Amino acid sequence: MPVKVTFLPIGKTVEVQKDSTILEAAQEAGIYINSICGGAGVCGKCKVLLKEGYVDSKNTPVLTEEEKEKGYTLACTSKIYSDIVVEIPLISRLEGVKILTGEISTSVIQTQPYEICPLTYKLFLNLTPPSLIDNTSDLSRIESTIQNKKSYKIMQTGLTVIKQLSDLLRKNDWQVTVTLGQRGGTMEIVQVEPKDTSLYNYGIALDIGTTTVVIYLVDLNTCRIINTQATYNSQIQFGDDVISRIQYAELPDGTAKLQKAITDDINNLIVEAVKETKIDINDITSIVCAGNTTMIHLLLALHSSNIRKMPYIPTATFLPVIRAREANIKINPRGLLSCIPAVGSYVGGDITAGVIACGMAEKESISMLIDIGTNGEIVLGNKDWLVCCSASAGPSFEGVGIKCGMRASKGAIEKVNISAQKDKCNVNYKVIGGVKPRGICGSALIDIISELLKTGILSRTGKFNREVVCQHLRQYSEGYEFVFETGENTDTKQDIVIQEGDIASILRSKAAIYASISVLLKEMGVAPDDIETIFIAGGFGNYLNIPKAISIGLLPNIPVEKYKFIGNSSVNGATLGLISNDAYEKAEEIARKMTYFELMVNQEFMHEFVAAMFFPHTNLELFKEYL
Amino acid sequence: MPVKVTFLPIGKTVEVQKDSTILEAAQEAGIYINSICGGAGVCGKCKVLLKEGYVDSKNTPVLTEEEKEKGYTLACTSKIYSDIVVEIPLISRLEGVKILTGEISTSVIQTQPYEICPLTYKLFLNLTPPSLIDNTSDLSRIESTIQNKKSYKIMQTGLTVIKQLSDLLRKNDWQVTVTLGQRGGTMEIVQVEPKDTSLYNYGIALDIGTTTVVIYLVDLNTCRIINTQATYNSQIQFGDDVISRIQYAELPDGTAKLQKAITDDINNLIVEAVKETKIDINDITSIVCAGNTTMIHLLLALHSSNIRKMPYIPTATFLPVIRAREANIKINPRGLLSCIPAVGSYVGGDITAGVIACGMAEKESISMLIDIGTNGEIVLGNKDWLVCCSASAGPSFEGVGIKCGMRASKGAIEKVNISAQKDKCNVNYKVIGGVKPRGICGSALIDIISELLKTGILSRTGKFNREVVCQHLRQYSEGYEFVFETGENTDTKQDIVIQEGDIASILRSKAAIYASISVLLKEMGVAPDDIETIFIAGGFGNYLNIPKAISIGLLPNIPVEKYKFIGNSSVNGATLGLISNDAYEKAEEIARKMTYFELMVNQEFMHEFVAAMFFPHTNLELFKEYL
Repeated sequence: MPVKVTFLPIGKTVEVQKDSTILEAAQEAGIYINSICGGAGVCGKCKVLLKEGYVDSKNTPVLTEEEKEKGYTLACTSKIYSDIVVEIPLISRLEGVKILTGEISTSVIQTQPYEICPLTYKLFLNLTPPSLIDNTSDLSRIESTIQNKKSYKIMQTGLTVIKQLSDLLRKNDWQVTVTLGQRGGTMEIVQVEPKDTSLYNYGIALDIGTTTVVIYLVDLNTCRIINTQATYNSQIQFGDDVISRIQYAELPDGTAKLQKAITDDINNLIVEAVKETKIDINDITSIVCAGNTTMIHLLLALHSSNIRKMPYIPTATFLPVIRAREANIKINPRGLLSCIPAVGSYVGGDITAGVIACGMAEKESISMLIDIGTNGEIVLGNKDWLVCCSASAGPSFEGVGIKCGMRASKGAIEKVNISAQKDKCNVNYKVIGGVKPRGICGSALIDIISELLKTGILSRTGKFNREVVCQHLRQYSEGYEFVFETGENTDTKQDIVIQEGDIASILRSKAAIYASISVLLKEMGVAPDDIETIFIAGGFGNYLNIPKAISIGLLPNIPVEKYKFIGNSSVNGATLGLISNDAYEKAEEIARKMTYFELMVNQEFMHEFVAAMFFPHTNLELFKEYL
Repeated sequence: MPVKVTFLPIGKTVEVQKDSTILEAAQEAGIYINSICGGAGVCGKCKVLLKEGYVDSKNTPVLTEEEKEKGYTLACTSKIYSDIVVEIPLISRLEGVKILTGEISTSVIQTQPYEICPLTYKLFLNLTPPSLIDNTSDLSRIESTIQNKKSYKIMQTGLTVIKQLSDLLRKNDWQVTVTLGQRGGTMEIVQVEPKDTSLYNYGIALDIGTTTVVIYLVDLNTCRIINTQATYNSQIQFGDDVISRIQYAELPDGTAKLQKAITDDINNLIVEAVKETKIDINDITSIVCAGNTTMIHLLLALHSSNIRKMPYIPTATFLPVIRAREANIKINPRGLLSCIPAVGSYVGGDITAGVIACGMAEKESISMLIDIGTNGEIVLGNKDWLVCCSASAGPSFEGVGIKCGMRASKGAIEKVNISAQKDKCNVNYKVIGGVKPRGICGSALIDIISELLKTGILSRTGKFNREVVCQHLRQYSEGYEFVFETGENTDTKQDIVIQEGDIASILRSKAAIYASISVLLKEMGVAPDDIETIFIAGGFGNYLNIPKAISIGLLPNIPVEKYKFIGNSSVNGATLGLISNDAYEKAEEIARKMTYFELMVNQEFMHEFVAAMFFPHTNLELFKEYL
């Protein structure tokens, strides 16, 4: 039996079957509801307010009695009984997130030291017509003409293309344009078009993040980025992190739904880019994709379950070049899709792309790449060697597991200054979008801890100093909390606070990252001062205050000028892989040679982790400039 | 409006739409009617006897007034008006033809000097299970294990296979069998199966002739031919020779119908072979096909039209390895299909296969390969050079254009002896199947001319000697004819004769072949005595009496012991290409390096042709031992 579900404040109504959950209805309506635990009913992030009608909701400890009385219910576990009207509270909505599209420019992409040689390119051929003397076949005529211009040994051509040749050549006076593509170590004639179309050849560089999806539309003739687009990864509705996505993928049809969600996103971005640039979508002949290993598995509908199970084995890290349509990506029907290779389950193609983008694998000197997201991936090395690890830092810096935590979206406190004068402390903060605050995002969490440590309000163990008198400090059931803003000044009408429990989470996260960095350095016998550059990548990157991050012991204490933000290095690396086969091969070499340290079984890591469970560190000597 | 058509003597009834032709109805019924001109109404080979009902038949000069009165009509041009009953006269039916399947044996195929390395082969892998220390992906684990056993640089794997890996490996204790296939210069993982299935791997060698289709089922582990099957090429119903097939292919849906006809034939043969050997059709993982260029174009539904139009350019001579299902061939759904490369429009992969099969391209000494069918293809050379040509000999030796000519099928006179004593000459003949004679096949035509020349009944210009008195000779409207058998002793109730017109056709055919041989020899400066071996291939081959063929000037006068029959060298060459990639690469090299002489524009050919328009030749010195 179908029932109607109306979502407020948007006012959108959909029909679903009775007994569907509110989350399923929201997915049907294309409305994002924050859902971190993948619909297990434990994170409580998906609470909605039932305004009219009936639902069957499980008893859950994540809702207070007060919330239940008001009509709050969890979207993920509430089964719809009748026509209903629900309101999605601000806290459950995702909107206006800043998505890092990397450094967008219409200038020519710097490919040095890689030679320009795109995944697909077009070559105009003015063929010599056949005669009784020169009577090679149509296909051999094309292939040998190409081989005279470019020296490829092996060339393959699909039956579809061969079938078109005869008419195409004769109707166009033997003038055609071939699109050549690199596949599996060989060169393929991807398509043959009438006359000279070689000016119109485009490619897509794609970054699939767990949270966001970014594309660059690249003119493959001029190597310019002519359009960029970004959106949320719609898979968010099935879970916030890779683990909950994999769990969802294990359900019947789960993988197919996740694949559809991401391919719809990508196709929408492509359509938008095509509309804005007025190019023909059939002139997009290739797409290069970077993403973490789980995202790539879900894009291609590969079995992802073993990524989350010991010993964490992905189905594939090096993937063949396929036709984009095999993954339901809509560009030229014969266009190619290539994925930047991954190192393993938790160091994906996005990291390989990052290494390519920052150029650390080309340098004599030693660099480090740090990409902090749900996990923190760290790479250390130079042109001769590369090591990497994934720190299971947890999603604290993305606002998950933090009482008032949220992503860096509209309403998030992103910068904080705290100054203490005698018995009074002043709190200044900046909110994304200049609206009333709704929560605290990762960069602000770092600011807060740094400032609280500086003022002495917070002790180096992560507990509030009970001896400090401060009007912002108060007790709660499990300890103390620091109040930034009271309900009357917030968007949610609730106080925005940071609790000792939150600080403990952040302490664990920063300790995990710092310990990972230390292990890599120790394993390789590299002193922090030996590092010439630390590249900071990822969505978190550009908002990070480096000195404050060092002061809490998240990042190593090396001169601030050695740190460099590189924005979305994943999409930048994919762009290089798109326009330079040379760069793509370098990515393969990097993914092959990079040594992965599994910290889960590393004794040194446990030792370093314990040592880092202190702000900034048990060995204060390491951070003496910041004390 | 549907009408019923009943075919006698078979007694089969089909329903077709009114206005269909009788030929179409026969095709619908799966009944072969001889049709040489491709339904143009000019060859008269498809005449049928209307017993009941009405048809709309065009006025045609190929039926005599007497035949029209009796109710004969042409199946190809007669449109059906009502329910009808037609009888297919013996002359229009094809049955019991001897199909040359080559030398069938259950012994191991001799591949020397080629290394055994089949197009597809199975390799059992007992993989080391992954651990936290050894954590490469499932795909890389398989690929590196293969690479440890065999040294392939590049390896590609389709998404379909990658998707199955994860479960397959874990459910089978990391014991799987991979099928590896050679594709486009790279190695592909065609499929992965549970546990050890490496003992079950089969391939098909296929020869698609214009008239017949032959397959060998080969055990790729033991390199033994375990079954052979042969049938007619059902495309015969659309025309007898390649030109009429191409003309049919140019009609709407023509190519699709021709493709369906041949693929149905092939699939039927495979099903039969599988049934007889009780193997699993999914264990057939590859198929290698040899055929003339037109047959290959029709198999793959390529545009064939330009093969018959100046300057005779095929769409492709070197074709990529594809999945067999792309050509609708039913073996393992991921099984591979490879075609032996062709030299040009009129020297196809069947000839390249023949060169491989006879081994002439491996020898120091000079050999010649002659394959006489509708065209006569001739190859001359050794391991250093190869030249070839196609003699447009016409189909006389297949019985076409000969008053009482027919294929070497049941009822055909295949051997003839004539002895003359004074005024009486005795004619002895042998009929295929030991039945009453119905017509004369190619080998008998050669015997007849040889014998008639020997007895002096026929002059060296191809006219009957008017001074000879012989009870078998009589006049007809356009000259003289020799009567072998009178109607009372024949299956058709008509006299079996050979006319001066027939002899003129044969003279032209033999002159074309002999002139082609001469041109190749002269162009290369090779004397007939320099030839060590002449390989005779093709359906015609094994029934040919070599001394008689020399005596009429069809074959060069070299010692008879230098001639060697090699049977169906096309399917034998395909077999080598199937079990030895080495042999396949040799075929590619041969097709690439073989020089094709286009005789159509060759002055020397015209000169040689005129010189050969005499039995055996205007230069009698060349055949003095046979005079």
